[in-house]
Order: sequence, then structure tokens, then C-alpha cells
Amino acid sequence: MDRHLHYTADPLDRAGHRRADPQWLADRLHDRATRVVPVWRYRNLLMSDGHGAEAVFITGAHARGLLQIAGEVVFLGLDPDDDTAYFAADLSDNDEQVLSPLLGRAEWRDLREVGPILEADEASILAQARGFLFWHRNHKFCGTCGGPTDSRQGGHVRACAAADCGRQHFPRTDPAVIMLVTRPGPDGGACLLGRQAAWPRGMMSTLAGFVEPGETLEQAVAREVAEESGIRVDLASVSYRASQPWPFPSSLMLGYRATAVSVDIDDTIDELEEARWFTRNQLPHMEEMGYRLPRPDSIARWLIEEWMAEGGD
Amino acid sequence: MDRHLHYTADPLDRAGHRRADPQWLADRLHDRATRVVPVWRYRNLLMSDGHGAEAVFITGAHARGLLQIAGEVVFLGLDPDDDTAYFAADLSDNDEQVLSPLLGRAEWRDLREVGPILEADEASILAQARGFLFWHRNHKFCGTCGGPTDSRQGGHVRACAAADCGRQHFPRTDPAVIMLVTRPGPDGGACLLGRQAAWPRGMMSTLAGFVEPGETLEQAVAREVAEESGIRVDLASVSYRASQPWPFPSSLMLGYRATAVSVDIDDTIDELEEARWFTRNQLPHMEEMGYRLPRPDSIARWLIEEWMAEGGD
Repeated sequence: MDRHLHYTADPLDRAGHRRADPQWLADRLHDRATRVVPVWRYRNLLMSDGHGAEAVFITGAHARGLLQIAGEVVFLGLDPDDDTAYFAADLSDNDEQVLSPLLGRAEWRDLREVGPILEADEASILAQARGFLFWHRNHKFCGTCGGPTDSRQGGHVRACAAADCGRQHFPRTDPAVIMLVTRPGPDGGACLLGRQAAWPRGMMSTLAGFVEPGETLEQAVAREVAEESGIRVDLASVSYRASQPWPFPSSLMLGYRATAVSVDIDDTIDELEEARWFTRNQLPHMEEMGYRLPRPDSIARWLIEEWMAEGGD
Repeated sequence: MDRHLHYTADPLDRAGHRRADPQWLADRLHDRATRVVPVWRYRNLLMSDGHGAEAVFITGAHARGLLQIAGEVVFLGLDPDDDTAYFAADLSDNDEQVLSPLLGRAEWRDLREVGPILEADEASILAQARGFLFWHRNHKFCGTCGGPTDSRQGGHVRACAAADCGRQHFPRTDPAVIMLVTRPGPDGGACLLGRQAAWPRGMMSTLAGFVEPGETLEQAVAREVAEESGIRVDLASVSYRASQPWPFPSSLMLGYRATAVSVDIDDTIDELEEARWFTRNQLPHMEEMGYRLPRPDSIARWLIEEWMAEGGD
């Protein structure tokens, strides 16, 4: 499918071989063209008008000012066209009032809210900045010995400072499976959607859950569907469709299709507030039924629309 | 392909809904039929003869004795046939001499060595036990505040004990892509294999690497191939084949096929000691060429053999 999947359009060259070189990183940080991607308490900096929003990247003297008051700074990559470096800078330890004069009309916004209206490449860069800085803030100490850790290799490693430990810690990415479960039948067949009680009213989405240690992705799909709905799927039908980084805070969504071999949803399970089958023909009329589809930048929406577009049965 | 992929045959029901109930867990732990899976410094307990090896699970009074001297204990799941519970028990803090009398002729073995000769279901249970206990030993402290954490929900969560933090930590699974890069051509086409300097002499395998934050699996495939060999792949050709838990210590291998759009390997890259193309017809004769394929329980081997079996071009 050629449809765009949000947060998958990172245009930067990660330049993994360069970031181990502290002098190279320092030179890039001091380059006037370097673009700083500010993050404040997991919010990104955006300029918006009535129609949309765009990311604000800081360069030159303003960038230097921000870097002086920043916490962690992470090298994100190089623009493949002109080699301009991008760095994420964590400004969370500063009061909002201190930052305001530096930022003009730009605003701190939560990517979970504004992501869908951003350009694909900017959304990817902002998502990456947010995800890396979340990881740094939650890995300040070594899980093995409890000692403080510090950032290395442009923010792509944290190392324990204790001489008798020294353990290296790498950015964490949590694989999660997300699956559209379907079954053949009249009206174009049906798909299984559900909702958590905390979600916006009426929103129904695909089932999903984190992969547990020791299981394959396909086993995780079958387990999660059974745990959340009681529906059994044919393990041989579980097929991979696409992946999407979802840095809220650090997931990697692995999108699947699976065919159900049972029909009756177990209503005694309380993991979901509601789960039900929608026929393919019902999906375009969900709002009339009091429901709505998940956000347009989600792989859940992508999986549902992919299946809708196939039509037939 | 119907070929068996090792460590993917976990027979246990993880019973996610039950493990939040401390009384249920305590009852299971005291059940004489409960099977304890002992782990000592990342080694599993095995009984071997000249032909093979099998896992040793401890029950009854012996199990109670081991549990009294164990560190972390993790609920692994229920046997779906008779509801017998399995628990992994970390005995690492005990001297080998203390443990020997309890264990008879059984031996502590490294699953990285003996994994290939174990039965599939036992290999999966042992791998899971090892992976969980590795995670516990390396998450004894909270990365956010540095305070001690303790185990909850039968070992499937660790929670920070600090009242002003209380952060929950979940088992970590690191997604890694592993890919067979091929190109059409004479002699059945060719595939790209490489070796790290630390590997056994002559061993050549598929390229592989960890997924970085903010990228899709398919982007990770293309990036890793370029970083390790300089070969460019067609992003549209990158196709998912299978997944395999690889708890050495905590990876999830995501197996891919990709088609190269360049031929010349960049010999100036030092990530690999050697990388080269093998034609499909050369693969059965690798040993005569001074090379050998990766271990039979690896997804690397599975990907290579899958492609060999397809024959043709």
C-alpha cells in the first residue's frame, strides 16, 4: 500500500560511524547552521496558524543560547542534502518563563495531539527527539548497580560511571504488536475492534499489546487477541503488514493481520471496555453508529483503511 | 516454510490474568507438582548423555529447598495439559559447592552452547527463564531516580520503592533486524554474508543489528546493510520472513529478505572482519572454501537455508 504511515519519514542520515568521535560532534554543535530541536517536558516546539503547524528548529546565536541552558543533547543525524546536523536539546529543567523570550511566537505542543497535522519528515524528526530525551531522563541511573550514568556517543549510549560496574545502556525500543483481526462473512466480512475506557468517547481501534520475553511476534498477536477478547486466531494466518515507530514514549508498533477462528467475544474480560465486530460495510458509517476510527496518524487506522480499501471478502 | 525455528516453541500458557494475584502465585509456588527451572549465573540446569541433553525441572521437597535459597523467582506460565506451574529461580548468589549436593548428576550449561541439541519446547522454557532472570539482575535499581526496585506480578514488573517516584519497569525486549541480502545472477544468484572478528573461525552469517529509536524495521534493515557493507538495498524489496526470541540476553530477532541494488562491498568499513557474496550454488560447498554456516538454532541459518531451498534464481 502506498498510503503514508506517519513517523516513518525520518529524512536524516544517522551517521552512526561519526557520532563516536567527540571532536566531530563538538564541531557540529558549534556550527552556525546546526539545527537544534528543542524539547521541554516531552513537548516539541511548533509554530502554528489556523491551517496547520510546523516544527521550529533553532540555529546560530539562538541555538548557542539554548544549548547553554540545555540538559541532555542528542545527535539526531545529518540532512542528506547539505550535511546540516540536527541535535535534540532537553530544556525541561528551565521554567517556561525563562524560555519564552527566546522562542518568540512558537509554542510547546504535545506531539500526541499535533502529530497528525505536521509534515511527515518534521513529525519524524520531532518524534525521534522526544523519544531520545524521554529515554535519557529515565536512565539517569544504572539499573545494575544504582550509580549515575552519563551520555556517550552523541546521546546514543549511556554508561555507568562506577568503576566496578561501567555497564553500557542503549536506547530502549519496546516492540508492540497491533493487529486487525478479520473473519469472512456477509457485508464484506467483519473486523474486530475494541476500546479502552480511558479513550475518547466512541473511539474503536485494533487490539494491541507489548511483546513479552520469549515469544515470537506471531505468538504475541494470538496471545493478546485471546487475552483482550477471548477470540482465537489461526496462527498460520498471522501476517506482518508494516511497522511504525511510536515514541509515546518508546514503542515500535508492528502491524499485523490475523484471521479469527472463533466468533463469540468474551464479555467477562475487563481489559477492554468494549469489543465488537464491525462488517466492512459498516465501517464508513461508524459515526452514525456512535463510534469513530482511531487517529489518522496511527498504524491502527492504516491497518483498518488498508482492509477497507480491499473491499470484497 | 515448515522448518522448525528454535526458541519459538514455548508450550506454556502465560496466564497473564492470574499473575497479578499474589495468593494464587503463593499457592502455585507451594504446590508439590510445581516445576522450578533453576538458573545459576545465566546457566541452565541440564542432564546430558552421549546423545543429547534434557532440561532438569525440580519439584516437591527439592523445589522447596531451592526456593529457600533463591533470589528472584519468576512465574513462567502453566502447562496447558495439566495446569502445572513453572517458575524460574535465580540461584546465582549461591556458591556452586552449596548447590551441587542438591542437583545430583545435573550440570550447569550455557544455552548458547547446548541450545541446538535440546528439544524445542524445553529450549524455549529455558531461554525464557534465562532471559527473565537476566532482566531482573540488571534492573535492581530505578533508572529514573536510582532507588531500589522490587519484583511484582510474579516477576513481570519491577516497581521503584521510592514513594516520590514509584515508576514501574517492564521486561525489556530489544528488537534487532537480521537480513539475507540477495541479488539475481548466474549460479542461482548470490547472497551477502559477513563475519565479526570474534566469531568462530570461518563462520559467515547474515548481517544484523539493533533497531534504533525512530526508524521502521525496514529502514533499520537498509541502514544496517549500508553501515556494515556499503551495499544499498531496494527499500521496497525489504520483506519480513519470521521472528525469533533470542534471549542472549534479551533480543528479538526480526528476520528479513532484501534485494541489493549495488554489488561492490566497501572494504574500508571495519564493522565486519569480512563480507562477501556467495552464489547459491557455492553455499553447499562452503566448508571446502574454508567457511561455515551459522549455528543451526539461529534465524540466520534459517534465512539462508530457506533461500537455498528455493533454488533457481
